[in-house]
Amino acid sequence: MEIIHHHNLAMKTEEEKLPPLIQAIAAREIAGFDNANNLHLHDLKISILDANEEQKQVSISMPSSPIEVHVGSSTLYPMSDSAAKFHSQPIPNNNKLKYQRFDSFKTWSGKLERQISNLRGKPCEIHENDDIENLPLDRFFDALEGPELDTLRASEEIILPENEKWPFLLRFPISTFGICLGVSSQAIMWKALATSDSTKFLHVTPEINLALWLVAAALVAAVSAVYSLKVIFYFEAVRREYFHPVRVNFFFAPLVAVVFLAIGAPPPVAGKLHSAAWYALMAPILCLEVKIYGQWMSGGQRRLSKVANPSNHLAVVGNFAGAVLGAAMGLKEGPVFFFAVGLAHYVVLFVTLYQRLPTNETLPKELHPVFFLFVAAPSTAAVAWTEIRDSFDHGSRIAYFIALFLYFSLAVRVNFFRGFRFSLAWWAYTFPMTGAAVATMKYADAVPGAGTRLLAVTLCGVATVAVAALLVATVVHACVLKDLFPNDMAIAISGKRPKMTRKWRHRYRRRSSSSSSTTDSDYCQGN
Amino acid sequence: MEIIHHHNLAMKTEEEKLPPLIQAIAAREIAGFDNANNLHLHDLKISILDANEEQKQVSISMPSSPIEVHVGSSTLYPMSDSAAKFHSQPIPNNNKLKYQRFDSFKTWSGKLERQISNLRGKPCEIHENDDIENLPLDRFFDALEGPELDTLRASEEIILPENEKWPFLLRFPISTFGICLGVSSQAIMWKALATSDSTKFLHVTPEINLALWLVAAALVAAVSAVYSLKVIFYFEAVRREYFHPVRVNFFFAPLVAVVFLAIGAPPPVAGKLHSAAWYALMAPILCLEVKIYGQWMSGGQRRLSKVANPSNHLAVVGNFAGAVLGAAMGLKEGPVFFFAVGLAHYVVLFVTLYQRLPTNETLPKELHPVFFLFVAAPSTAAVAWTEIRDSFDHGSRIAYFIALFLYFSLAVRVNFFRGFRFSLAWWAYTFPMTGAAVATMKYADAVPGAGTRLLAVTLCGVATVAVAALLVATVVHACVLKDLFPNDMAIAISGKRPKMTRKWRHRYRRRSSSSSSTTDSDYCQGN
Amino acid sequence: MEIIHHHNLAMKTEEEKLPPLIQAIAAREIAGFDNANNLHLHDLKISILDANEEQKQVSISMPSSPIEVHVGSSTLYPMSDSAAKFHSQPIPNNNKLKYQRFDSFKTWSGKLERQISNLRGKPCEIHENDDIENLPLDRFFDALEGPELDTLRASEEIILPENEKWPFLLRFPISTFGICLGVSSQAIMWKALATSDSTKFLHVTPEINLALWLVAAALVAAVSAVYSLKVIFYFEAVRREYFHPVRVNFFFAPLVAVVFLAIGAPPPVAGKLHSAAWYALMAPILCLEVKIYGQWMSGGQRRLSKVANPSNHLAVVGNFAGAVLGAAMGLKEGPVFFFAVGLAHYVVLFVTLYQRLPTNETLPKELHPVFFLFVAAPSTAAVAWTEIRDSFDHGSRIAYFIALFLYFSLAVRVNFFRGFRFSLAWWAYTFPMTGAAVATMKYADAVPGAGTRLLAVTLCGVATVAVAALLVATVVHACVLKDLFPNDMAIAISGKRPKMTRKWRHRYRRRSSSSSSTTDSDYCQGN
Repeated sequence: MEIIHHHNLAMKTEEEKLPPLIQAIAAREIAGFDNANNLHLHDLKISILDANEEQKQVSISMPSSPIEVHVGSSTLYPMSDSAAKFHSQPIPNNNKLKYQRFDSFKTWSGKLERQISNLRGKPCEIHENDDIENLPLDRFFDALEGPELDTLRASEEIILPENEKWPFLLRFPISTFGICLGVSSQAIMWKALATSDSTKFLHVTPEINLALWLVAAALVAAVSAVYSLKVIFYFEAVRREYFHPVRVNFFFAPLVAVVFLAIGAPPPVAGKLHSAAWYALMAPILCLEVKIYGQWMSGGQRRLSKVANPSNHLAVVGNFAGAVLGAAMGLKEGPVFFFAVGLAHYVVLFVTLYQRLPTNETLPKELHPVFFLFVAAPSTAAVAWTEIRDSFDHGSRIAYFIALFLYFSLAVRVNFFRGFRFSLAWWAYTFPMTGAAVATMKYADAVPGAGTRLLAVTLCGVATVAVAALLVATVVHACVLKDLFPNDMAIAISGKRPKMTRKWRHRYRRRSSSSSSTTDSDYCQGN
Repeated sequence: MEIIHHHNLAMKTEEEKLPPLIQAIAAREIAGFDNANNLHLHDLKISILDANEEQKQVSISMPSSPIEVHVGSSTLYPMSDSAAKFHSQPIPNNNKLKYQRFDSFKTWSGKLERQISNLRGKPCEIHENDDIENLPLDRFFDALEGPELDTLRASEEIILPENEKWPFLLRFPISTFGICLGVSSQAIMWKALATSDSTKFLHVTPEINLALWLVAAALVAAVSAVYSLKVIFYFEAVRREYFHPVRVNFFFAPLVAVVFLAIGAPPPVAGKLHSAAWYALMAPILCLEVKIYGQWMSGGQRRLSKVANPSNHLAVVGNFAGAVLGAAMGLKEGPVFFFAVGLAHYVVLFVTLYQRLPTNETLPKELHPVFFLFVAAPSTAAVAWTEIRDSFDHGSRIAYFIALFLYFSLAVRVNFFRGFRFSLAWWAYTFPMTGAAVATMKYADAVPGAGTRLLAVTLCGVATVAVAALLVATVVHACVLKDLFPNDMAIAISGKRPKMTRKWRHRYRRRSSSSSSTTDSDYCQGN
Repeated sequence: MEIIHHHNLAMKTEEEKLPPLIQAIAAREIAGFDNANNLHLHDLKISILDANEEQKQVSISMPSSPIEVHVGSSTLYPMSDSAAKFHSQPIPNNNKLKYQRFDSFKTWSGKLERQISNLRGKPCEIHENDDIENLPLDRFFDALEGPELDTLRASEEIILPENEKWPFLLRFPISTFGICLGVSSQAIMWKALATSDSTKFLHVTPEINLALWLVAAALVAAVSAVYSLKVIFYFEAVRREYFHPVRVNFFFAPLVAVVFLAIGAPPPVAGKLHSAAWYALMAPILCLEVKIYGQWMSGGQRRLSKVANPSNHLAVVGNFAGAVLGAAMGLKEGPVFFFAVGLAHYVVLFVTLYQRLPTNETLPKELHPVFFLFVAAPSTAAVAWTEIRDSFDHGSRIAYFIALFLYFSLAVRVNFFRGFRFSLAWWAYTFPMTGAAVATMKYADAVPGAGTRLLAVTLCGVATVAVAALLVATVVHACVLKDLFPNDMAIAISGKRPKMTRKWRHRYRRRSSSSSSTTDSDYCQGN
């Protein structure tokens, strides 16, 4: 038990440096769900196959996590309390086996135990890992539904306990970074409201920008810290989010959020940004893009005609936002590079999404808030081109007017926000509104007049209301309904197909939904 | 019978205000086909199911139609005479039941009767209406064929009598507005010929423009008036045209024709146009676009990968033509807006049509005059960009040269006009030629020289010959063959699929036509 | 036997004018494989059906071929020696019947014999020709595999002897022109290296350009001459290459190679080019384009959604290269025309290839050198736009940066050149690298600096290394492995499908490879 003590000691010293929220989450992870056994181990692994034998308990020393973050506003994280409470709740003993199933997602549980078991001479078979390792793309489409592919189909089984609340980190999706996008883009908007010629008459104080920017920075830091813990403790869950055809696009969200922070930085901060920071920021975006776009082109399972969905716009927005930042910092070539890459892929994406190929299984049949992402790319492109050319020329106008048309085209479909389950991803759908508002201010600067000014103020108002509404919804879901972070089905699907009878029934259903292939299956089944 | 009298009275006073042609058509509609019964009712409704019972006769008072139109040239409407003749022809009695089937398309027949029947306590089942109300998109593709989807497949049945001539309004399709497009674009061309620098040497008198413009204006007025009557009397038929995947695009035709009229207006008239007129004109185009493009994007049945066909270019041309008009009137922002919207959707459409996705069932296998619509958008875009930028710059050149390449690429496929049944829609395929001719004059203005002048004159000549040829064809079909307005199968398809054996045969045929899916059906049938 | 003598006589006088290599090949063709019979006839035709009868021998006088070419470097054609050797090798007698099967590909063998037979009153049935005449596109996809569609599937049979080496001309594919593209683009690069401001510091001597240009010109002449012989002697084989969905694009290669030669011509030569030469050069490119793009649009079997593959870029590059040449020669309108046509089709192609529609059967699942063709079009477009605008403006930058992104995106996938069978088509994949290097030099001229200069030099180095590596590979395959020109399966597929059992097995395999349609066939087979 020396290892355990060493581990506890190491954690103690680490914990003091972490802010309370992060501490609480980390502590809970370390505690695991084994309170009932009075064992403070986080990677207890019980081979399910020989559960009748004596249970083998193995612990490893956790690496000291070098994360130092400052959480500015802990009120945004109402889970911290409940998480802390949960910590001390005793878990009923009969659920023990079920909870052990989370181990398959834990970072160091599998391999190490096997190594130790092998050392002891008893190789233990781990069956869940078969499920986990080979998860082809088609399984995601088969097992999940909804525009964010996060709802389990009726016929499917998952490999985590369906009826229990999972550990917090497993329920913490990458799409939480959408909040950062929403708030940091608001910081940009209020900066523009305070400095733009067309909105000078509103006398907006720059303090709003400062306040929002601080909140946004704190949020980015907090969400990043928590997600880092997920990377550390549940790498398998992160891996599954990365392979998820919709979720993978949200991996751009933290990077884009930081770019937004840099664009929206209050003038004193913004002045100090060195151009090296820009290169440092854009490098990971470029790498991720090379990866994602390469997958489209290389045409394995992840070919574009299969995975295209509005969240792909996030990568494109990353390009244009990077171009805005770079051009605003006075760079010349880099911004044009990202603008060009963004433009090329935007054209491909725009055409593909508009076509709605029958193979684009992720595109929801009905319009959905996710479609607002359509507005993000052209409005950011308009701002980027304006910064590059230093004037709102015809190129900017074309991009801006496309954004405006798409915006109104979506806005008139009013039965939009009805009948959809709220999710954190919705935050990502507010930043396009903010982006359109910012672009409109640029436009109103170029074309002064009551009409353009009215349009700018209206769009700013709509964006602010949308963000406020989402804030309320988030707080309600967090504090009242306590379901802000439901079990994340998207990462828990089984690699095996459900049994034959179910599969057939399910398949038939799925086919029927895409009208073009219905006839085929009808036809064949008719035989 | 008080209601009937009131109705006849109301019509009498209205009729005096209408020009003779419209009067004749309206009178015939009101008379219906019930002359044999000596009853002047237009919405006699006989429930076919209990035809053995006493027939229930219901009449409603028609709203006084507030249409006041001026038909400039009644010679273009040779149907007026025959329609008037028809009016006094007695209809054989044994056809009575058949003609009553038209009632299901009449505007006020169905609902009101049911209400009155219900008041009387006898609910009457109306079976045809089941056919009419739920008509999914797939039925159009299944039941019709041809590039304009207006030919009934052999296996299908229709809900209107196949062997009789239908009422005139039911045979009057929205694509008749194609004539307006053809003639009004000619007015534009002759205006350009008279005013353009490059064609000054031809000494074209502006009177030709004036004459063509008057004819075009009269045509627009006449066709609009007649189609308004269709809207009033046979709303169900209009509804079905609106849901028809090809026809719906022709709903842009009247709007675009008016824009063309405004562009081609003789200088004294054009000078008086107020910019408010432009906004008034473009508003309905914008609304219709939001509707149509929204359908593409929202991806129900009417997803682009399914409905894309060359007639979609009409909407795009509407944008560019609006931009031309606006820029010519001195507006700055509005024209760029429409240019941007047009450009975005043109790119999507161009790529989609060029790809010829296997799901694009409406695209004819062989080239067809409809493909000339490909030329319309880039040549109008070239003119629009020239007006916006006030010079024929590289942007204009790129659009113009694309149009030129497409034009020649289509023109060299000479076996074009063979083997296709003439239809009124062909008129819509002449205006792209005229558009290319106008763009060439703009180009010749920018690049003076014998070559460009020759090209401009040649293209003007080709366009004039094409319009003249169509005029002859139209007159021949109208006066000699008397089949200018054949029964419009496109609106009469049944909502129910034909019987099983037929369906299978038919399906097999349809599949074979799209080579990519042949193997599937082969495969399955092999079992 | 008078005809034969006359023929031999005619050839004698012709042969003296031809360079040795061409002579050797022509001589071998004339000799045919009938040395064993001691008959110097090239179109001996033995009707296989009545092989037991007396053999009919027919000869025709060959038209005097007006080809006069100068082979600058015969070392590049190691086949000449072996071909010459082969000439004198006796062919075993028992193979005679097999070799006679090549006759079905010979130009004058079939028809003439039939005519003569008919004159003699003995109609002879020729069964192979049924195979040859009707070869639908689907047969190519069904029977072949690989990114260049040149590998026979296991289940297929071919109509030429599989185990023997075929006549040289039958093994000489149109893709050999890829070598010309590779070498002539190197000539352009070294010209730019010698003349460009950004690479002045390297002090590259213009003699390298001159040497490479001479080699390239000689190569173009030699390959053209040999391929002309193929056209003359084996027209059926050329026809089949033309109908091959990938090969057809290589018919642009000789035209593009000549354009490259004109661009890369040493300054004294380049100065003498008359603008008429440009029109003469571009006319056939335009015609071929009208043909190919027309096939896409007309949507028969050769619809784009079916035949799209990276080699389609060759046509687009032809447009941009023509624009570069024309603009460099001082023309104004022509270059913009080709730029516009290229741009329009590039957008269509880029989107289509990126989407990887499930119907694009030719696209290899894994990345392959052929994907480097993606880089060619945007980098040539960047140079073309720079020449047209006379400055490296934002338009050029956008095209150039897209090329750069695609280049790096492909380059980081390092397991590229592994596991692929070398083929001559690879030469075509080096010219995009050279094109990117040339565009980078233009960029470095516009944006002077150590970084851009380094990039330019690096890309030039990479391109040179790639060409050198291919040269070594080509020499090794030619001299050591003696398999530079393997039997060309692509032209020898049978028009008939293999027997039922095989077909089913094969089909099942093919389906499985495209994931989207797997389920269908699974489903049906499950019954």
